Amino acid sequence: MAPRIAVLGLGLMGGSLWRRLAAEGYPVTGYDLDPATRAAARADATTMSNPSAGRIVDTVPAAVADAEMAVLGVWVPDVENLMHQIHETGFGGILTDVTSVKQPVQDIIDRKYPGTRWIGGHPMVGFSRQGYTSSRGDMYEDCPWVLCIDEDAKPASTMRDWLFLARIFTSIGARVVPITARDHDEAVARISHTPHIVANALTLNAAASPLGHLALTLGAGSFRDSTRVAMSNPDRTASFCSWNSDALADELDQLIARLSQARSILRSGPNPTEALRSWLWPGHVVRSAWPPEPDDEISFPASVSSLLELGRAGGWVREVNGTQITGVRPSSIPLR
Amino acid sequence: MAPRIAVLGLGLMGGSLWRRLAAEGYPVTGYDLDPATRAAARADATTMSNPSAGRIVDTVPAAVADAEMAVLGVWVPDVENLMHQIHETGFGGILTDVTSVKQPVQDIIDRKYPGTRWIGGHPMVGFSRQGYTSSRGDMYEDCPWVLCIDEDAKPASTMRDWLFLARIFTSIGARVVPITARDHDEAVARISHTPHIVANALTLNAAASPLGHLALTLGAGSFRDSTRVAMSNPDRTASFCSWNSDALADELDQLIARLSQARSILRSGPNPTEALRSWLWPGHVVRSAWPPEPDDEISFPASVSSLLELGRAGGWVREVNGTQITGVRPSSIPLR
Repeated sequence: MAPRIAVLGLGLMGGSLWRRLAAEGYPVTGYDLDPATRAAARADATTMSNPSAGRIVDTVPAAVADAEMAVLGVWVPDVENLMHQIHETGFGGILTDVTSVKQPVQDIIDRKYPGTRWIGGHPMVGFSRQGYTSSRGDMYEDCPWVLCIDEDAKPASTMRDWLFLARIFTSIGARVVPITARDHDEAVARISHTPHIVANALTLNAAASPLGHLALTLGAGSFRDSTRVAMSNPDRTASFCSWNSDALADELDQLIARLSQARSILRSGPNPTEALRSWLWPGHVVRSAWPPEPDDEISFPASVSSLLELGRAGGWVREVNGTQITGVRPSSIPLR
Repeated sequence: MAPRIAVLGLGLMGGSLWRRLAAEGYPVTGYDLDPATRAAARADATTMSNPSAGRIVDTVPAAVADAEMAVLGVWVPDVENLMHQIHETGFGGILTDVTSVKQPVQDIIDRKYPGTRWIGGHPMVGFSRQGYTSSRGDMYEDCPWVLCIDEDAKPASTMRDWLFLARIFTSIGARVVPITARDHDEAVARISHTPHIVANALTLNAAASPLGHLALTLGAGSFRDSTRVAMSNPDRTASFCSWNSDALADELDQLIARLSQARSILRSGPNPTEALRSWLWPGHVVRSAWPPEPDDEISFPASVSSLLELGRAGGWVREVNGTQITGVRPSSIPLR
């Protein structure tokens, strides 16, 4: 029988998850702080192919009652408050989240709610739209979904809980990526948080006096795309960048070093073309081979080390059968 | 009677221009070094609504014979060679180009072909596709097209030539932007050349060991867009960046300073959220107001100073009637 699931917070991520779980026939209960969002979701529930699967309730206790797992669909600053409400109910099921930093959230849980069955999660979904009205049932199709694994020894029950979540998220089409919270935070600092900082810096560079208006009029495709995420809500960007400040500052160090290399080449003499070409080619090769496609499928019994090895190699879990994992290795991208 | 025009080099830019000029009924002669491109263009000419307007010829002399103006549709490294061939024919008409650096090309012309009726041009078209097969007749609709103006005193004939070109390019829908070669080079360093360098640096950052494969698997929308132009041909990127090395190196200085600010904020204490928010908001406001839309229309008699004032304010020329300019000011973007 399908497990009973609670989704708390029905924004872009939580709303999309609630829709899809309901469509797959999971008995899933949704809750959102905003009454208008609850009303919209209730109206959508009546039009679903399986209207009895997706319910909407008006309180946190009603949402988590009888649930085997609960997904916190809120951003980092709201995790503590929501955890407090869940904890008050005496909820003893598995907990996971969808926030974009994992170690700081893990630290909050360890400090305030030790012994909680918490497994950090992060589906890699873009931020350009927000809210329930943007949510879609097919959001997680082929979407990388990080589920954190702790390297340190933990009770065997932790692996059981991890497999439970992995089974559910793979069943809705996600690519479950098993990695540690720290590796996650470093990786997303590279591929998400740094691009957000850079988008703002590039925009300010373009807009600087006295040629700002001219530059903005001449801006075309490369300006548009490289600065797109500067349109994201700056309060939210400030929030996740601050939560990941150590990893992000380290990545900015690396980026500044690379840009300084390019600048030195440009100032190295009358004709820097050849040296600049050598500097540009490796990134071109990597980017042209991106995104990685599914390559070899491998099957192995679940263990902390085997799962982390798969995740660190850029692989993901496609299916979970009991304790047997079907993993996928990514197509090779030639790194430096 | 419509002026006779030669387009030399039928890649993405030259090919699109030749198509559109022919469609508008200009007697336009196209030439490309590559016989296959000439054959493809010849085949297309027969299907045009006005098949007598667009011709394809097999030599540079045949292309420029009787032409009042010639457009060099080649990239910077090929400008000198093509100019040599044109010069050999004794061509005395107006010359313009479509390359992405203006002062270095102007310097070549001034040094090797003094007295030539040269007016540097640059339509702001993306580089993601290349070649005649990607060319389109509607490429220049609402496209900013820089036509350089020299601040220094020049014979009145230069303004006549400038107006001649501006009339033709506005007639095919382009937004003709009147600025100096140096201002152009600084502006495109900001909005095009810097984003190209950054895209490569971000890609290499993501791909760095030991978490490169993981990071590339997790990369989503912000990584995709911020690194897109790293897929551009690195040889061409190296070429235009090297030609604009001074302006580009200066812009990288500015960018590195901005990124260093952000890094300092991230390392400034236990909760950098508020300071980071203040750092992020100005860029967010600018980017959210981009691109500028047409605002006030103004009419004025053409002069070097009035045209440069329009261009420096981010405005463009919509129409040329004799020596009377119809200009457009951009919608206001609140700069710092």
